[in-house]
Amino acid sequence: MTQPPEPTPRIVWHGRSWRLRVEPYLLPDGCILERGFIEHPGSVVLVPVRDTPAGPETLMLRQYRAALRETILELPAGTRGWDEDWRQCAQRELQEETGCRADTLIPLGEIWPAPGVSNEKMQLYLALGLHDDPLPPDADEEIVVQPMLLAELVQMAQDGRLQDAKSVVGIWRAAAHLQSVFAK
Amino acid sequence: MTQPPEPTPRIVWHGRSWRLRVEPYLLPDGCILERGFIEHPGSVVLVPVRDTPAGPETLMLRQYRAALRETILELPAGTRGWDEDWRQCAQRELQEETGCRADTLIPLGEIWPAPGVSNEKMQLYLALGLHDDPLPPDADEEIVVQPMLLAELVQMAQDGRLQDAKSVVGIWRAAAHLQSVFAK
Repeated sequence: MTQPPEPTPRIVWHGRSWRLRVEPYLLPDGCILERGFIEHPGSVVLVPVRDTPAGPETLMLRQYRAALRETILELPAGTRGWDEDWRQCAQRELQEETGCRADTLIPLGEIWPAPGVSNEKMQLYLALGLHDDPLPPDADEEIVVQPMLLAELVQMAQDGRLQDAKSVVGIWRAAAHLQSVFAK
Repeated sequence: MTQPPEPTPRIVWHGRSWRLRVEPYLLPDGCILERGFIEHPGSVVLVPVRDTPAGPETLMLRQYRAALRETILELPAGTRGWDEDWRQCAQRELQEETGCRADTLIPLGEIWPAPGVSNEKMQLYLALGLHDDPLPPDADEEIVVQPMLLAELVQMAQDGRLQDAKSVVGIWRAAAHLQSVFAK
């Protein structure tokens, strides 16, 4: 009697910026199952902040997300090219999505958005010293820039009105960073 | 001359708890591209907190994540069955992953972990009044429970040592909730 062929890792779909890898794994009882996960080049998340008479203001986006069939409120962000430099990627996404370039990018750490299904790593930056320097937006993105007070966004991150996880983390870390700077 | 067949939405892979859907979309210039996203039943994230003489303590997990090829620090969490009740799912995951059941589940809002690639919605709960009531763990999960002080976790969420996005959001919302309760 022949054994069934042993499953081997395989790529089942290639998208423009990521791919789905499926691989077998062995359970303690000897069963072999398959799990799938996204192989992702990583991404950047920007917290662009500028001063206004009412207080620090953040450039947020209203962006249509096909996966959710919804337009959501989120920070500027974007997928890195597989070989792209992280800071170059950050400036490019900022220019494409907000029309601004930043004099200063302050790292706010990394996060894994979905470690159960993806190896995506997000690098967060506080973007200061903003000046107009636009790049053409991606043809498939529907984006409107919406400046909002940082203090209001902190409240929304806390009470649940801000639902995008990367944006909650970015807003909180940026506010904590700016508060610690002002406290000195 | 015949036209190439128009692409239609299709499921390219079914996993145990989610599936990859690929669908065509039209660019403003008339080009048709394909995008893929995960169709997901949603998940729960628990912040189990108990009092200790040193202050409130949270039951964190060290869990191996195959997608990252790493063991990471994170909150208890798990995927909902497609028709499972959210609170029942929350208690089940808590019992499987920490061996405890909670007298009280306080909603801490919802988040989208990765709206660019998935429709997954995560419902967060603060879990209080913990008592032993274990369920057998999932056979394919490698988990160790690690109690940590909430104040230390808030610091780690801020300075970047806590990298799991859902855990950063859960820790912050739980700390803010408990602080607002104690302030009353």
